[in-house]
Amino acid sequence: MGTRLGELVELFGGRLVGDPDVRVDGVAPLERAEAAELSFLGNSRLRARATQSRAAAMILAPADEEAVSAGYSGALIVTSNPSAYFARAAQLLQAHWVAVPGIHPGAVVHESARVDPGAQIGPLVTIEAGAVIKAGAIIEAACYIGPGAVVGAGTHFFPKVTFHARCVIGARGIIHSGAVIGGDGFGFALEDGRYIKMPQTGRVVLGDDVDIGSNTTIDRGAMDDTVIEDGVKLDNQIQIGHNCHIGAHTAMAGCVGVAGSTRVGRHCTFGGAAMVNGHIEIVDNVHITAGTLVAASITAPGRYTGYYPIAPNAEWERNAAILRRLSSYRDRIRALEKAVQAGSAEQK
Amino acid sequence: MGTRLGELVELFGGRLVGDPDVRVDGVAPLERAEAAELSFLGNSRLRARATQSRAAAMILAPADEEAVSAGYSGALIVTSNPSAYFARAAQLLQAHWVAVPGIHPGAVVHESARVDPGAQIGPLVTIEAGAVIKAGAIIEAACYIGPGAVVGAGTHFFPKVTFHARCVIGARGIIHSGAVIGGDGFGFALEDGRYIKMPQTGRVVLGDDVDIGSNTTIDRGAMDDTVIEDGVKLDNQIQIGHNCHIGAHTAMAGCVGVAGSTRVGRHCTFGGAAMVNGHIEIVDNVHITAGTLVAASITAPGRYTGYYPIAPNAEWERNAAILRRLSSYRDRIRALEKAVQAGSAEQK
Amino acid sequence: MGTRLGELVELFGGRLVGDPDVRVDGVAPLERAEAAELSFLGNSRLRARATQSRAAAMILAPADEEAVSAGYSGALIVTSNPSAYFARAAQLLQAHWVAVPGIHPGAVVHESARVDPGAQIGPLVTIEAGAVIKAGAIIEAACYIGPGAVVGAGTHFFPKVTFHARCVIGARGIIHSGAVIGGDGFGFALEDGRYIKMPQTGRVVLGDDVDIGSNTTIDRGAMDDTVIEDGVKLDNQIQIGHNCHIGAHTAMAGCVGVAGSTRVGRHCTFGGAAMVNGHIEIVDNVHITAGTLVAASITAPGRYTGYYPIAPNAEWERNAAILRRLSSYRDRIRALEKAVQAGSAEQK
Repeated sequence: MGTRLGELVELFGGRLVGDPDVRVDGVAPLERAEAAELSFLGNSRLRARATQSRAAAMILAPADEEAVSAGYSGALIVTSNPSAYFARAAQLLQAHWVAVPGIHPGAVVHESARVDPGAQIGPLVTIEAGAVIKAGAIIEAACYIGPGAVVGAGTHFFPKVTFHARCVIGARGIIHSGAVIGGDGFGFALEDGRYIKMPQTGRVVLGDDVDIGSNTTIDRGAMDDTVIEDGVKLDNQIQIGHNCHIGAHTAMAGCVGVAGSTRVGRHCTFGGAAMVNGHIEIVDNVHITAGTLVAASITAPGRYTGYYPIAPNAEWERNAAILRRLSSYRDRIRALEKAVQAGSAEQK
Repeated sequence: MGTRLGELVELFGGRLVGDPDVRVDGVAPLERAEAAELSFLGNSRLRARATQSRAAAMILAPADEEAVSAGYSGALIVTSNPSAYFARAAQLLQAHWVAVPGIHPGAVVHESARVDPGAQIGPLVTIEAGAVIKAGAIIEAACYIGPGAVVGAGTHFFPKVTFHARCVIGARGIIHSGAVIGGDGFGFALEDGRYIKMPQTGRVVLGDDVDIGSNTTIDRGAMDDTVIEDGVKLDNQIQIGHNCHIGAHTAMAGCVGVAGSTRVGRHCTFGGAAMVNGHIEIVDNVHITAGTLVAASITAPGRYTGYYPIAPNAEWERNAAILRRLSSYRDRIRALEKAVQAGSAEQK
Repeated sequence: MGTRLGELVELFGGRLVGDPDVRVDGVAPLERAEAAELSFLGNSRLRARATQSRAAAMILAPADEEAVSAGYSGALIVTSNPSAYFARAAQLLQAHWVAVPGIHPGAVVHESARVDPGAQIGPLVTIEAGAVIKAGAIIEAACYIGPGAVVGAGTHFFPKVTFHARCVIGARGIIHSGAVIGGDGFGFALEDGRYIKMPQTGRVVLGDDVDIGSNTTIDRGAMDDTVIEDGVKLDNQIQIGHNCHIGAHTAMAGCVGVAGSTRVGRHCTFGGAAMVNGHIEIVDNVHITAGTLVAASITAPGRYTGYYPIAPNAEWERNAAILRRLSSYRDRIRALEKAVQAGSAEQK
């Protein structure tokens, strides 16, 4: 482990101010970095912290170079996107997940499953008939891979992922513990007040470089597939209904829910606990604020919001009571307008 | 697999327009159905798609028969509820879950558990002392069945269900992966700012034909039971608190939460992420819109709503700022009313 | 099992009115208690139920003593906090979890893990390299304990807990089934519209007497730790983001979400589905109502609320339509004020 600054710049670019032979063997936040560690300044408001950092080297933006170098004596790597540079450097410097090829003797693997010899299968994993695990994939302890499911090259399942029958994930993905991919969609026909189950026979198809959070659930399509395109990042506790289509490089924070058959565009973001109704469409580059319910399609990019502002309880009580009778206040404003108009007409 | 149209009509009723000896071997949506498949028209707005379908046969409502048969050349099954008819036909035509009797050698089954010889127990399942698994039940990989729990006939647990001690589920139920039934309720006594755990010793009792979604949690009662009546359908990521009682044939969409000791009626529906406070009562046939908080009891059937409407962020900012000072606007309306009244009195 | 009333009073205090040699062998709610059971009156509004209870003894507050003893013939234990007293008595009287020392042969325990001989390890558990399980801990079936993780003395993991690498929990804790502690935080750098993963290398550190609900998720810190202090109680389906710090004896109801890097004070409470934005601070003794989004820091103790009040749907439609145009109504009020002022000026 560890690398020279010169090597970092060769790999990831940026302008090095300092000795290329200085070595770094880890990463750390500004205030905790030690003499052999690399840190970064991602936000100009933290310049004061940066100047006092003991890090061996610091990644920063051109705009911060002068101010920081006045006080900080370590090396600098100047780049337009310090956060992205730091993410790459950290991936290089830190222990990262590499498959230890082989199948743990405590795993239960069906004889018709095709596990690449370069894949790692942990203890107490179940792999059903016809499933395919590609090279470099890591399936940690107690995961379940359903019949005919396909896990792409270099994809990493943390312990206790459930990946149901015939679902597919591409390369370099990550699925965190407790996620359930490909459970039945919530589809029923109603007859005489009782629900009759609609069989759910579509799949979930996830692209490359997808990241799925802990305990997130994505339901299989009813007859067609649920699709998660390349580069989508879903945080924990998210629910994606059947037949949804989530466009590439869209990110959702924790506790978001998307009801069935909704189509979300590319490069969208959703704040925590945003909820999206079913059977609607959201175009590319839409940003939904946390706690907002999207009840209808959104046809123009931009930021959208709809949460009730918090207040001390007594104040909320007062305002909410008025909100409940808002139409009566509208009527009173109309009546006033008429009265004032009448009065003013009379005066003329 | 596969069946004759004549057989379908014998089993499920409906009026067949076409050759009873035509065979169908699967189901598909209108636009994707192949020549040996069955499809259905559940919504009159999709008539155009129906006329162009290549399906061998189509289930539709009497109101759509004339329009569709003008263009569509396959057979018709005319029935008052095409969705329900299709659900039944699809259950018949598609591979469905049937127990493959036996206990996988990798399961850990306590000697005092009573597993019916007609039940299927998958690999890496744990069944504790005194549990009962009835005929035709399917317990898939890595499920946990606690001491004294009872799983009814033909009930299907997908992989990784947790079904805690002494809980009971009836016949023909489905519990999806990651669901946790019978965890401790959230009950504490507060003393000097610290919480003391109230032991939770009730059960969860689920009726027949209940469907529980992936990663849904239902807590055991504190001393009495939490009860889920027949035919209740819960989507994914739902939380039901201790001592709740959910009436028969009620359905809840994803991410709904119901706090403890609340009683929900029969035939209710809850949109996604609706939240229900504890210790309240909701009568039968109540329909709660997605994203709505039910803070108090509901005593009359009907649809209820309470979510903040979404808007472009700048518009929301403007309106929310006024909402926060709603009581000052009320005061200004009152002042105006007084002024106008005084002005008008003066004029007389 | 079972105890004398005199013994209860010796252990937990309170004033006994009745025979100290009366025995109780269990606890039950007022209306269901049998002749050898202990019950309690936690709420004066239930006095009528108390007087009719068949319980052998009842715990109640001084204020209720006279009214209840008029009708109820059993023994009384009079104490200032009947709920807390009952919780302690119930813990004593009911079957409670005690480790049955030993490692189930179906568990997979790494040779470098240190499992105290007084700990209980269930079937199908995975314990990775260097993990430490202290005395009296109970790790139930199918739990996963990551490399280097530490589980404190007497702490109880229900089946299927995931406790990731290097995470730490103190003594006497409880983690319920399906909880995931120490999954990666949701941290990415954005570059040209694509997300680059920030390695997440902090830990989750939980104090003593912490209770974590079913399917709750707590992410590890990015570089520093996520910290849950002593006595925190989290209900089911909660999401705590990376680098959060939750102060001692704070309680959160089901479905709450806290985004990353937020600091919550001590002795706070959060109603169900309350959501907290990231990078904010909430002081001690703050109480957030259910369904409320906390979008900014809270600097003073008290109760805060922000949910949209529920209404019959037609009424909501009417009011929400006005809410969407609130700024136009503000403008109309302003115009009225000018008109009235002008009119009144004219009259003078």
